Order: sequence, then C-alpha cells, then structure tokens
Amino acid sequence: MYIAIMGHGVVGSGVAEVISKNNSLIVKHNNLDSLEVKHILDLREFPDSPYKDKFTKDFNDIINDEDVKIVVETMGGLNPAYKFVKACLEAGKSVVTSNKELVAAHGYELLKIAGEKNINFLFEASVGGGIPVIRPISRCMAANEITRIAGILNGTTNFILTKMITENMSLEDALKLAQDNGYAEKDPTNDIEGFDACRKICILASLCFGRHVYPDDIPTQGITKITLADVEYAKNYGKVIKLLGTAMRSPDEKVCAEVSPALIDSTGPLANVNDVFNAVLVDGNAVGEVVFYGKGAGKLPTASAVVADVIDCAVSKGTKIGYTWGEAAENNLVSSSEMLTRLYVRGFASDIEKAKENIKDKFAGAEFITRENAPENEIAFITPSDIKRKLIKDIEEIGNFDSQSVIRLF
Amino acid sequence: MYIAIMGHGVVGSGVAEVISKNNSLIVKHNNLDSLEVKHILDLREFPDSPYKDKFTKDFNDIINDEDVKIVVETMGGLNPAYKFVKACLEAGKSVVTSNKELVAAHGYELLKIAGEKNINFLFEASVGGGIPVIRPISRCMAANEITRIAGILNGTTNFILTKMITENMSLEDALKLAQDNGYAEKDPTNDIEGFDACRKICILASLCFGRHVYPDDIPTQGITKITLADVEYAKNYGKVIKLLGTAMRSPDEKVCAEVSPALIDSTGPLANVNDVFNAVLVDGNAVGEVVFYGKGAGKLPTASAVVADVIDCAVSKGTKIGYTWGEAAENNLVSSSEMLTRLYVRGFASDIEKAKENIKDKFAGAEFITRENAPENEIAFITPSDIKRKLIKDIEEIGNFDSQSVIRLF
Repeated sequence: MYIAIMGHGVVGSGVAEVISKNNSLIVKHNNLDSLEVKHILDLREFPDSPYKDKFTKDFNDIINDEDVKIVVETMGGLNPAYKFVKACLEAGKSVVTSNKELVAAHGYELLKIAGEKNINFLFEASVGGGIPVIRPISRCMAANEITRIAGILNGTTNFILTKMITENMSLEDALKLAQDNGYAEKDPTNDIEGFDACRKICILASLCFGRHVYPDDIPTQGITKITLADVEYAKNYGKVIKLLGTAMRSPDEKVCAEVSPALIDSTGPLANVNDVFNAVLVDGNAVGEVVFYGKGAGKLPTASAVVADVIDCAVSKGTKIGYTWGEAAENNLVSSSEMLTRLYVRGFASDIEKAKENIKDKFAGAEFITRENAPENEIAFITPSDIKRKLIKDIEEIGNFDSQSVIRLF
Repeated sequence: MYIAIMGHGVVGSGVAEVISKNNSLIVKHNNLDSLEVKHILDLREFPDSPYKDKFTKDFNDIINDEDVKIVVETMGGLNPAYKFVKACLEAGKSVVTSNKELVAAHGYELLKIAGEKNINFLFEASVGGGIPVIRPISRCMAANEITRIAGILNGTTNFILTKMITENMSLEDALKLAQDNGYAEKDPTNDIEGFDACRKICILASLCFGRHVYPDDIPTQGITKITLADVEYAKNYGKVIKLLGTAMRSPDEKVCAEVSPALIDSTGPLANVNDVFNAVLVDGNAVGEVVFYGKGAGKLPTASAVVADVIDCAVSKGTKIGYTWGEAAENNLVSSSEMLTRLYVRGFASDIEKAKENIKDKFAGAEFITRENAPENEIAFITPSDIKRKLIKDIEEIGNFDSQSVIRLF
C-alpha cells in the first residue's frame, strides 16, 4: 500500500518516521502487504532527509498517481490544504489529516465528499494529539447518547496554568518559560486566546452532537485575564482553574459550546491533568463519565495518531469506515449566556462592608472566599446557580463594587 | 439485525435496556436497518420483564436461528459460557462478551475460530467495564510498539484503598462499606485477592504483546496485607498505594506481568483514580503515556461497551474487524522476580539503631521513612533499585529485623 504525505514539518516528518520505525510491526499486526511512503510534498529542500528521493514540489505527482490510495495532510492552515484535500477526496483517495483548522472549517463538506466516494476522511490527530479520542467517541461510545464533553484541549495554556497553580509563577513568566521550552510559539495568540481549543471543541461537538459547529459561532476566551489572585482564591475554594472547551446538550436539545477558563473541583478527573497533557471527558447516558488522557501534541504522539488512521484506511481497503455529521443548522446552537451556571467573581470595593451587603442583596447564598495578604479592598465570591446572562447583569449592577475577574464554575 | 443475549443478570439486562433505550439513536448513527433482541437465554423466570416474550431456556433456540447473526454472552463463568460461545462461533455467529474469565481462559482459541470463520469475537466490556480500552489499544495505537501497560483494574479494591487513604478507614471497615454499597460481593475473594484484576491484565497483555497470557502464570497478590501504617508511610513518601495489574516487555523481549499492590507517585495520572473508578495506562513508543479512565463496572457502563461491540459487528456485517493474538509460547514470560524494582519495606526491630545499621549495610542508599505515633520498634524504608529476587533475599537476611510489609514501587 502506497501513501503520500503533504507537508514535511514537525508532524509530517514524524509520520514518515513512525511508518519507517514501526514498519514491520505495523504490517504484521494489521495483515498488510506493505505500507510505504511514495511521495512527500513540500516546497522546501531536505537534502539530508532519509526520504530525500521521495520529495516533490508538485501536487500533480500525488493526485495523478494511481498507486497512491491514501494521502496524509500535515501542512496545516487552510491554504492550500483545503484545495489539495478536496481534490484528493474527489479523486477517490482517502485522506488522513492532523489539521484541526481544516476540519473545524470544512469538516462537513469533506466528510460528505468522502461519504459519496465511499472512502475515508479521518482526523484522529486533530484533537488531543496522540490520545485516541475521535475513534473511541465515535465507535466505542456508539451505544450512548452523549450529553456533555469537556476538554483540556491545549497543552500550551495548560502548561502555563500549571506553573501558575503549582509554582505561583506569573502568567508572563510562565508564557516565557513555555516559549523557551518550545511549548509556545513566538506569537502565542492562537493558544493563549483559546482559538486552538475552539477549533478542537468544534470538532468534538460536531462529532458528538451530529451537526457541524463552526468556530466563529463559539464564544472563545483565553487565559490572558487570569491572575495569581484568582488561582489562589480558586485553591481556597477547593478548585483549580483550567482552560476548558465544553459542549453540552441544552434541555431543548440544542448545543451549547464555549471555550473559557473554568473553576473545576480539585479532586475531579480533569484537575490533575498538568503541564502539556490534554484530557477529554465525555459523558454518555449509559457509560457515565469517561476520560481520555495523554500528550496532546508533539511530533511522535501526533504522528502516531495519524499513522493509526492511515492503518485504518489501509485495512478497510478504501471502504468508508469513519464517522460523519450533518451541516450546521440554524437554531442548532444556544448561547452559554442562556444556560444555568455559577460564577466566581473577584473585584474591588471602596467600602468593603457596604459592597458585601450589596452582594448579599443581589445573590442570596453567595459564598465569600478569602486569601492571605489580599488587598484590603478586594472581595471574591461565588454566586448561586442562575442563568449566566442574568448573573452577569447582576454583577455589573452591584453597588460600590468593581468586578475584575468573572470565571465560570464547571 | 437480530441478536440474542445469553444471561439476563446485571450486565445482560443492561444490554437489553441500552438497546431498547437508545435504539433510534443507534440505528440512525450507524446506518443500520434495525437492531432487535430476538432471544434471551436464562434459566430463571422474568414474568415482569418488558422482554418477557423473548425468554428461552433452550440454547438450541439461539444456535439454530438463522436470523441471529450476533450473540451476546453475559452469563459469566466458564460453564456453560465456553461451550455456548464456541458453538456460536463455529456456527458462524459473531459473539460479544463481557466475560473476562472466559476471555482470559480461552481467548486465543475463540479468536482463532472467529478468524477462521471471518466473523468477530469482541470483548471490550471484559476490561475496564464501560471505558473504551481494548479497541483504542488495538486500533488507535496500531502504529505504536507498546512497551508497558498498568491498570487499576478492579473497582472494589480501589474503593477500599481509597477509603483507607482518604478516610483512614481500616481494610475491614472499608470492605464492609463496599459490601453495604453493593460494590463487593458477600464472598469478596475474587476482588480482594486480585484474581479479577489478574484476568484483566492477562487480556491486556495478550492484546498488547501478541501471545496469550494465562492467569495461572501470573503472580497475583491482593490487598489483604495492606495496613493503615503502610498507607501512612506511603503518603509521607509522596506516594499512594494502589492495586496494579502491570505488564511490560523485558529487555530480552519477554513479557513480565503481575498483579500486586504498588506505591505510585501521588502526582501521576493513576494516583487520583479513586473510588470504584478504573484506569488503564498504556505506554507506546511513539505516543508516550495514554490513560483511559472511567467506571470500570456497573450495569449500564458495562452494557454500553457490550452494545458498542454489537454495533461494530452489525456495521461490519459479519466480516472480521477485531483483534487477534497467538497461542502462549514457552519462554514468552519472565518472572517479575528477575526485573529491576525498588521496594517499600516495613517491619519491626528489637534494637532500632542496630537494625538501621544492618539495613544500611545491606542497602546502600536506602531511604528511611517516618510517621507520627509509630510504634517505637517500627522501621520503614525504600530500597535502592535492584533485581527483585535479590532484594527479597537481602530483606530476609537483615539482622535484627522482622519484615511485615514489602510493596513494590511503580
């Protein structure tokens, strides 16, 4: 079986490496005749690569090669990945990608083409890197109605938050450390503003709830507003702050998805997911809570997920085996503002006692939290459960109180 | 698609319930024409069951029914489960089972028959209850050479240990509480002596390393010797005690498997798996550590795993899709006594100072641990890393020291 790889960056070169390194094991375990990389598409030169005789700069070498039945896309970005992937599928070649941006933007359309051609469009590596997530959700939980998904989907931000929580490091210092370690890019916007996590929760929500969810429709907030004060208050309330992508069914069968920081129980299964590790929690109506945990990024972990998809394509000999979902529908989504939640609130008051009275007036059952050495005029509390929109309005209206941080409880 | 269920106990009745409750979702998501339970085999009477017109006491009603292409076995035990399952497979019917005893004892033979008939013998529910473990390992990690597996595979013992660790409850009281909550049977031997975990690690080891591993060949030790003193010492050393099933490749490519308590890092991914939850850690040469976590038992979680396998059989229309492994081979296994490890040791000495000197003489680099209010003549320490057999011999030979607990570090 011949494959082609488009893009020889971190993940793409990892795919070539895993296929080469574990070749005999892969062929034997999966009863394949062979598995061989025939073309690697990249505009750059790799004169020292062990695959140097396989490189091409011309996409036509791949699309016109009848021998190539499976194409791996690890270029990243939308262009030209979208055009190339679509052309491959239309030419009857199964495609495996690690490109979450592509799947979040065009998953429905590409799955539809694959379905019509009875071939596969697989993207296990697009969420959770090497952690098996997509396939376990789609196949092993086929017997469940999924009610909720929540994930720590971005290793960079989880590394930064872990340093803030366990070492009291400032966000700036932790980001700098992440960059020094190669966990964060020079321009860390995609990670720290939550855009990367947003694409991943869109893919998971589409898969679990059956209709494409587009990133632009999902409220997305990163970690840049989180302070060490918030981390400390959370801790004193038995919680840790994590950047969560969440998606759940609302009572009226719509989907509510968002990416934002959340206070989670420090004894729960997601609380101890630290450093660059990712985890995805799935709640099914029969199985209950299931969590998948592992390295969410990195060359070989991500490559191993890509290769597993390639093997699935090879084993199924081109016949459609994967998942699918429908086009996005109007009114399929409901804003998280309309859902019940509790909020953590921290802010300042010129007259502490008066502000506390005002808070108690607005929120019967508000729980105040303290921390050592807090500024004299600082107040932090947890609201009772109510519709988020109403809570936000009430917080704004608290007399004599200037809120600085508002974070949801999960 | 018609199926039959053999055994209407906790899991079997759960399978009928999940298929009934989620029927429209299952049929739609998986493009099936229908999925219907046609026969339920049980010797008992269920006059109030919603499935009461489907019961039979005669296995021939199932084996002779050409309409039934998939048979679920949830009877448990080896007899008559083994005979019935074998007959079904030989008759060309795919079989799905939750019966870990059956798979651990006869997995190789039954997989072989299924392979010859080009049908499926699937058993996702036999390990980790509802947690997708078997399929993610076999398919999603197809690209990896697996180097190590470690699992908290038994919910009953994990519940007991959690109570000992977090509430300082004695083993006897915790067992009583587990029984009162329905987590432990009246005769808890299979759980607390590690036999249940042993069957599961055998299934995982067979799957990961390619040859059947039989329970009789695996050293198995339960939790009955663990005391609150050990729990406390472990805590003071930054560890928690868990009952682990482990299997790994030895340097000479053999398999080393065992079930026994182990001290694990309190910050690691298995340490916070509490109560009746299970978790399986898999280490692959490309993906690194991956952990699957969830409820390891219970009616609906286990049933949901069974139904997922049923769906896989239905979707694949009888064609073999599952995993397989070879027969056990002589010299495939290596005893854990021959592997490197560190040990936690607790014991008593009439002359503490003399005993400590003797321990230091035997074990250069031994780390002593203390606990509050320990008996005056109690000593606890961690050995350096060495071959386990040698460590055990050296511990026995420590002059003036009577060892009470010896637990491996993981």
